[in-house]
Amino acid sequence: MLSKGSNFISLSDFTKEDILATLSLIQSYDDQNLKRFIPNKKKLLANLFYEPSTRTSSSFFSAATLLGHEVLSINEVKFSSVAKGETLEDTIRTLASYVHCIVLRHPEEGSAKKAAAVSDVPIVNAGDGTGEHPTQTLLDVYTIWKHWQKLDGLTITLMGDLKYGRTIHSLIEVLKKFDVNINLIGPKDLRLPKTYGSYLESTELTENLAMGTDVLYMTRVQKERGAKGNYALTKLDAENLPPSSIVMHPLPRVDELPTWFDSDPRAKYFEQMQNGLAVRKCLLDRILG
Amino acid sequence: MLSKGSNFISLSDFTKEDILATLSLIQSYDDQNLKRFIPNKKKLLANLFYEPSTRTSSSFFSAATLLGHEVLSINEVKFSSVAKGETLEDTIRTLASYVHCIVLRHPEEGSAKKAAAVSDVPIVNAGDGTGEHPTQTLLDVYTIWKHWQKLDGLTITLMGDLKYGRTIHSLIEVLKKFDVNINLIGPKDLRLPKTYGSYLESTELTENLAMGTDVLYMTRVQKERGAKGNYALTKLDAENLPPSSIVMHPLPRVDELPTWFDSDPRAKYFEQMQNGLAVRKCLLDRILG
Amino acid sequence: MLSKGSNFISLSDFTKEDILATLSLIQSYDDQNLKRFIPNKKKLLANLFYEPSTRTSSSFFSAATLLGHEVLSINEVKFSSVAKGETLEDTIRTLASYVHCIVLRHPEEGSAKKAAAVSDVPIVNAGDGTGEHPTQTLLDVYTIWKHWQKLDGLTITLMGDLKYGRTIHSLIEVLKKFDVNINLIGPKDLRLPKTYGSYLESTELTENLAMGTDVLYMTRVQKERGAKGNYALTKLDAENLPPSSIVMHPLPRVDELPTWFDSDPRAKYFEQMQNGLAVRKCLLDRILG
Repeated sequence: MLSKGSNFISLSDFTKEDILATLSLIQSYDDQNLKRFIPNKKKLLANLFYEPSTRTSSSFFSAATLLGHEVLSINEVKFSSVAKGETLEDTIRTLASYVHCIVLRHPEEGSAKKAAAVSDVPIVNAGDGTGEHPTQTLLDVYTIWKHWQKLDGLTITLMGDLKYGRTIHSLIEVLKKFDVNINLIGPKDLRLPKTYGSYLESTELTENLAMGTDVLYMTRVQKERGAKGNYALTKLDAENLPPSSIVMHPLPRVDELPTWFDSDPRAKYFEQMQNGLAVRKCLLDRILG
Repeated sequence: MLSKGSNFISLSDFTKEDILATLSLIQSYDDQNLKRFIPNKKKLLANLFYEPSTRTSSSFFSAATLLGHEVLSINEVKFSSVAKGETLEDTIRTLASYVHCIVLRHPEEGSAKKAAAVSDVPIVNAGDGTGEHPTQTLLDVYTIWKHWQKLDGLTITLMGDLKYGRTIHSLIEVLKKFDVNINLIGPKDLRLPKTYGSYLESTELTENLAMGTDVLYMTRVQKERGAKGNYALTKLDAENLPPSSIVMHPLPRVDELPTWFDSDPRAKYFEQMQNGLAVRKCLLDRILG
Repeated sequence: MLSKGSNFISLSDFTKEDILATLSLIQSYDDQNLKRFIPNKKKLLANLFYEPSTRTSSSFFSAATLLGHEVLSINEVKFSSVAKGETLEDTIRTLASYVHCIVLRHPEEGSAKKAAAVSDVPIVNAGDGTGEHPTQTLLDVYTIWKHWQKLDGLTITLMGDLKYGRTIHSLIEVLKKFDVNINLIGPKDLRLPKTYGSYLESTELTENLAMGTDVLYMTRVQKERGAKGNYALTKLDAENLPPSSIVMHPLPRVDELPTWFDSDPRAKYFEQMQNGLAVRKCLLDRILG
């Protein structure tokens, strides 16, 4: 699991027990001290982003910095050596000789694994295209677990783009390890690929479905994908969702999650994002030792 | 005024006394230690720039770093979440959960106020379009005050683009609080909007005007704006300006401020820029406590 | 040579003895502590890159940070003040008032010298177009010297683009100060300019030439330059090169240096790159004192 010097590429090898142990560990970082600096044996970390993701890179920067480390931010890779045809492997070998850990965001699936294969220092996967974005998944699962203090027995409704949403796919992969009831709401053209399993599917969030939901996890339906139907949260949905339920979203949101819901106690998407800081502090602290 | 945890959005609420107290405070930072590191209770600051401004972001970075803080620089906002349609408010809420203070540069007037409305951490306005750029104004006023040790009684000549120059407008707003004599020199097409008040106007820096000037504040007249006439400093102007006067410019300059004047003791534009460091150190130190 | 507060613009004034003293000095930084943080009297350094060079900027960032200093990275100069027509001199004057040292990368020859002429703080040349990239040259020479513990008496074969390769030109300028035997291998259209001297030239790496080589320094031949012939390392070349020889490359590489050679003990290009960290730590430590 998470130990000094280890890579963090994927959650697929984590057992149910590993996940639960990790969630408890994260919680130990998620306290009053979340934004306080921790004195540390300083390390140097590279934030190597082949595609921009302000949210993710900022969160890693903040986590590392608050742990007392230093961060080399590399955002313009595409304009540089890479443009001259350098392979990911050569770039990683280079950077690995300058820093103690590399956080990698790359548009191609499998690139984190490729990087780990040649790197002398730990690689942390910050999203590899249609592959995984395991810290996002951890913060999603952590947010659910933090609220419910369990995963087994929950009914989790996933709404939006179920076909292309990497976030949704990765979340399902972890939830499958638990005794969780999954409902899917989305347009017919954007159904969940069969490889992720078969669950109850609906094209709308009916009163019944809403009332039985413990966690509503929403994602954006991009207009370019031409899907019909409305997958925005309505006032009626808000009425139907139980008082104890929570509403999540990986952000950025557009219209599907109206701002009038922000002040609702069930709105957990901003807390979810902040949980990302706890997740990344925990992870980096374990890996950098 | 400037106190721990406060936002810094605009100078419009500062009274004459507030301004004078602030100038004295800045001076306490403007000493031998200007570029020395100060040990501090470290904080994490985000430099969130929606449009590039190397000078301003570097100055804030330097100020925060020299105060012992850490800086998360975000320059590529437009390529990221924002491109996906995220609102400024959501971006601010996200960042506010990662850092202790946000320095915001944004092309739209009113955005600093908008950001402050949703932020859990102090917002410092580093320029919001046609709105204000209050640290620039403070460093301008501080430069005048530092030289003359007063503002009341001075004759200040503003030359260049008086219509679009935000720097000029903001400076006038502060100078109006004092007993200052303002002269305006600029092309007919680029006159000062009436809302800022009525002052003596001329299309050239005559011998008389120059001789009566204590502070000549120059700005660029962009060629695209099609103004006629020459608003560059001439050798004759330099002769006419009193030995005790000073010449200022917000930089970058092009032709209007010839390099032969740089070694003149009245040339204060580089010192003016360095004063920006004192202003920002003072400001951040007060706000971050 | 390298002393507190000095600029580092060019190696052209370094005598043979200066070079040897510098190499020894570098070696004192190239130890177990290469990636350990050194507590220091913290300084603030600007990494001012007018053109992207991830490798070089990362290496300087890492060197400065590991020495305990702070780095202000400026990569987007072209989008900012400069786009408004600001001269390099004005940008340097500005930055010099915010930081303690400026590492400058600029596409125009002579810009480092120009910058040093107006700067209050030391300027380190990180490459000025067709001019020099003296830390690259130092790391090249250091890599050779580290392996052979001498330079005099060596046979050094330079292969690739000899006409446009700044790296090659600068390396030759230093090697000329020593009693070194230089061989040149490259396409007829990309011959070494006469100003660098006359050496044995060949259009291919013959068996004889390979067998007599102590150091093979390869560079890329850009296809756009329309040169014919193959200047990639072949299995036969690898057989012919002596067991004690080393193969170098400034990176990034493309096809000319096949990955099957990476595990060969003579492949020194990744170590060469890591030597860049030792060189830059040494340099900055001397200059920042």
